[in-house]
Amino acid sequence: MAAPADFSQVGFLGFDVFGTVVDWRSSVARAAAPVLARHGVQVDPFAFADAWRALYQPAMEAVRTGARPWVKLDVLNRENLDLALVAHGVEPGHVPAAELDALNLVWERLDPWPDAVEGLHRLKRHVAIGPISNGHIAGMLRLARYGGLPWDLILGAEIARNYKPRPQVYLASVDAVGLAPGQVAMVAAHNADLAAARALGLRTIFVRRPREHGPGQTTDLQPEQDWDIVADDLVAVADMRART
Amino acid sequence: MAAPADFSQVGFLGFDVFGTVVDWRSSVARAAAPVLARHGVQVDPFAFADAWRALYQPAMEAVRTGARPWVKLDVLNRENLDLALVAHGVEPGHVPAAELDALNLVWERLDPWPDAVEGLHRLKRHVAIGPISNGHIAGMLRLARYGGLPWDLILGAEIARNYKPRPQVYLASVDAVGLAPGQVAMVAAHNADLAAARALGLRTIFVRRPREHGPGQTTDLQPEQDWDIVADDLVAVADMRART
Repeated sequence: MAAPADFSQVGFLGFDVFGTVVDWRSSVARAAAPVLARHGVQVDPFAFADAWRALYQPAMEAVRTGARPWVKLDVLNRENLDLALVAHGVEPGHVPAAELDALNLVWERLDPWPDAVEGLHRLKRHVAIGPISNGHIAGMLRLARYGGLPWDLILGAEIARNYKPRPQVYLASVDAVGLAPGQVAMVAAHNADLAAARALGLRTIFVRRPREHGPGQTTDLQPEQDWDIVADDLVAVADMRART
Repeated sequence: MAAPADFSQVGFLGFDVFGTVVDWRSSVARAAAPVLARHGVQVDPFAFADAWRALYQPAMEAVRTGARPWVKLDVLNRENLDLALVAHGVEPGHVPAAELDALNLVWERLDPWPDAVEGLHRLKRHVAIGPISNGHIAGMLRLARYGGLPWDLILGAEIARNYKPRPQVYLASVDAVGLAPGQVAMVAAHNADLAAARALGLRTIFVRRPREHGPGQTTDLQPEQDWDIVADDLVAVADMRART
């Protein structure tokens, strides 16, 4: 764990959410399992969650490059669900669209990691907090109400109409809170997210989430730069804040 | 007090803030008084607060009409402070700019009406809440943290880059929460705000604030249309919600 860093100049903590604050993999697998079983799709629900999630980056990349106009994440997730089913040999239309629409809402009902709610509440006593996520605003809102995430406000991709790690997502969020980049810290379990934030002058807090991708995770197990803070969970971040 | 209305289809309450949730007049007068006294400006602080606030609508109108590009409310408030001083015979530069910059921050430290925090907490148990205000996001954030306003998120003028009652402010806010206009209720102490919201299909909740403009208030004392709900304060709105 890194030494406590100086938080005194930081007025806002912007959070990555999927993987950093909530455990998408377990929640998606749990929601997908009965749908897959009901329709005879022979696939481990965790593998299906991974396959669905694997389509997330390429779908956003079309928006990042400008090949596709801005579209919110729920639309991409829904399209990717169709693609993930096809990849598992399910004919289009085999599962009724209404069932898939309902399953897609799982992205608004993801369980927080066990430390997240306490950690956020403690951090919020001292500093404003909110998502700088690729999730859309309505999804982030419903996810917060589902899990009890006490955001002060919701920023991120939708206000910039582009996806991280494009600079404008971080910069639009920094501008919205009326602070300089160095007065905002990005909190993420992903080195690439923090690298993009640091390049723009934001402070960086790395939270280890070694099971985001399940027991066989190989990525983001360790910090790849000397981030301002490195912690094992959000309660540990709050502990560091309390000591400064 | 109107009969309880059906809240069951409403998923988001959007709040006007200045006047509806917070008492800007008393707070601005209190903050202005020592500055005015220190610099020998002979004016009642409440009258000065009224004069400063009176410049609010014309300043926004320049943005609404397109005569001026989008600019956040703190900039307009700061300009209007200079104008209000000049109108009271104060030479430009007589009061140091740093003091005026500091005074301008009073718009982020306005006391909530006595019922507001309790009312919002109770409403939030059942439905998502947030400002649909002409205030900018950073100002709304700091105002919320100052007064303990438990918003789920912050919407309003800045996400639409225009000012109420322009339709896009309401429509951008409705779009952001992923609901239909009829699933969003606008809560305001101002008939014109509700009229604009209703014209777009939003539900309407009128809260009486007969002292927003002081003891001599002549406007918005009563509902001017049959708003869906009419109440004396935000606790009363929560009471109605609890009964449905």
